[in-house]
Amino acid sequence: MEDAKLSLEIHTDLARQILVDFIRTEIQRAGFTRAVVGLSGGLDSAVACYLAAEALGPANVLAVRMPYKTSSAESLEHAHQVVEATGAEESTIPITEMVDAHFARFPDADTVRRGNVMARARMIVLYDQSAARRGLVVGTGNKTEILLGYTTLFGDAACAINPLGDLYKTQLRQLARALGLPDAILAKPPSAELWLGQTDEGELGFTYAEVDRLLLLLVDGRYTPQACVEEGFDRGFVEKVAERIRRNQFKRMSPPIAKLSNRTVGYDFLYLRDWGT
Amino acid sequence: MEDAKLSLEIHTDLARQILVDFIRTEIQRAGFTRAVVGLSGGLDSAVACYLAAEALGPANVLAVRMPYKTSSAESLEHAHQVVEATGAEESTIPITEMVDAHFARFPDADTVRRGNVMARARMIVLYDQSAARRGLVVGTGNKTEILLGYTTLFGDAACAINPLGDLYKTQLRQLARALGLPDAILAKPPSAELWLGQTDEGELGFTYAEVDRLLLLLVDGRYTPQACVEEGFDRGFVEKVAERIRRNQFKRMSPPIAKLSNRTVGYDFLYLRDWGT
Repeated sequence: MEDAKLSLEIHTDLARQILVDFIRTEIQRAGFTRAVVGLSGGLDSAVACYLAAEALGPANVLAVRMPYKTSSAESLEHAHQVVEATGAEESTIPITEMVDAHFARFPDADTVRRGNVMARARMIVLYDQSAARRGLVVGTGNKTEILLGYTTLFGDAACAINPLGDLYKTQLRQLARALGLPDAILAKPPSAELWLGQTDEGELGFTYAEVDRLLLLLVDGRYTPQACVEEGFDRGFVEKVAERIRRNQFKRMSPPIAKLSNRTVGYDFLYLRDWGT
Repeated sequence: MEDAKLSLEIHTDLARQILVDFIRTEIQRAGFTRAVVGLSGGLDSAVACYLAAEALGPANVLAVRMPYKTSSAESLEHAHQVVEATGAEESTIPITEMVDAHFARFPDADTVRRGNVMARARMIVLYDQSAARRGLVVGTGNKTEILLGYTTLFGDAACAINPLGDLYKTQLRQLARALGLPDAILAKPPSAELWLGQTDEGELGFTYAEVDRLLLLLVDGRYTPQACVEEGFDRGFVEKVAERIRRNQFKRMSPPIAKLSNRTVGYDFLYLRDWGT
């Protein structure tokens, strides 16, 4: 690669400090002192919980485990290890009854529909706890999944602030190691656990290591697809990834409003989130 | 008022034509032919259904009624009148079981929490139908409620496209009359029906007629709050409304991502929704 600055290696101490400051500042700015984090047992949400506990003090972090009936006991246990390690407050609110109440009407629904309803039911639980406990929902979406659109809109993508969205999965792993996450969480393959035996990499059809190297060129390096091929990436792989990024752009934006007036929300009525504070 | 162009009167034929084109174009551009609309029995969702039926043909519009056990029979009947008038396909999917499954764990939850979970359960149903029936969810949020933040984030605010978001409630009423909506729907007071006897205006503490005149000055006319007072508005009212607009800015944006790299989603990775198509 020509561009020496293009690297997936991160300075973990600096990233940790920036993200802890981000969480503390954004939550205070919104007038809150507490955070709510959904803990899946996986790496991303564990990192979010560690950072939130460091930013706000563990007593101000509510860590919510939201198992579905098919969720593994192991994942629940891994989430509990995160609670133990960080000192966050633990709450366990299963989504089984809510999800099954819906699919009792649609017994033939496929796994994709079921997975999306599960992700959205978890959003409901987290936002309800946000209201009940006066804490902001801290998101756990990473840069790889946001770019690939490997998220459920209004589900796991829904949050008040996202400390992890500018870290590729492989970078998040580096941060997770530096934070001292439990080995069991560091070692296991990433999975959304939407069905038994699911792994992210199996479903996506490529590894995070591969796709992160490509995304770094395409997005951060602004390489053309052709230039990525010249760097040694398979043409089919490059095209598939570029297409995924484009096709999922709608998930990264507010829904478009039909413009009728001279001043329309999202077009010419534009302010910062903390405008006026 | 000095500015003669500042008026709440709309050219209903022109608005109708623009909005019908908007729905048709946006849905085609995303590769779809069908729309899914949640019908509450109220005016806004009725207008969205009329426009979608005109844009796509009624056979391509799925109108979903999603009553909770406390929803009024009258509202269900009004929604049915819209289906009859437009020729859309009707589906009725109650949210009672889903919502009650959640609150069985939290019997003391207040009406605000319950209302938000209802709005989000309806989002789950609409998006699940969107997947099942290959139709895009057409939103029904108007400019008044978007500016005031009188919406549930990831609930009724969630949609793929929003044809109504640049029309104040009083303007939407003009369009509704021009479209020939049933009298019963035109006549009744706006209500989110989150509890018995709720009306929007009772809950907000002012009427749509009042607040729309003020919003037109503040937002479209870029009047300062002081200038609005000089136009005859009560100072307390102006300050309350201006504060609501500011405080709810977060609902009009994607969640902020902590910036770590040179190219971050939402900051310097910015494209149009239909980028690349």
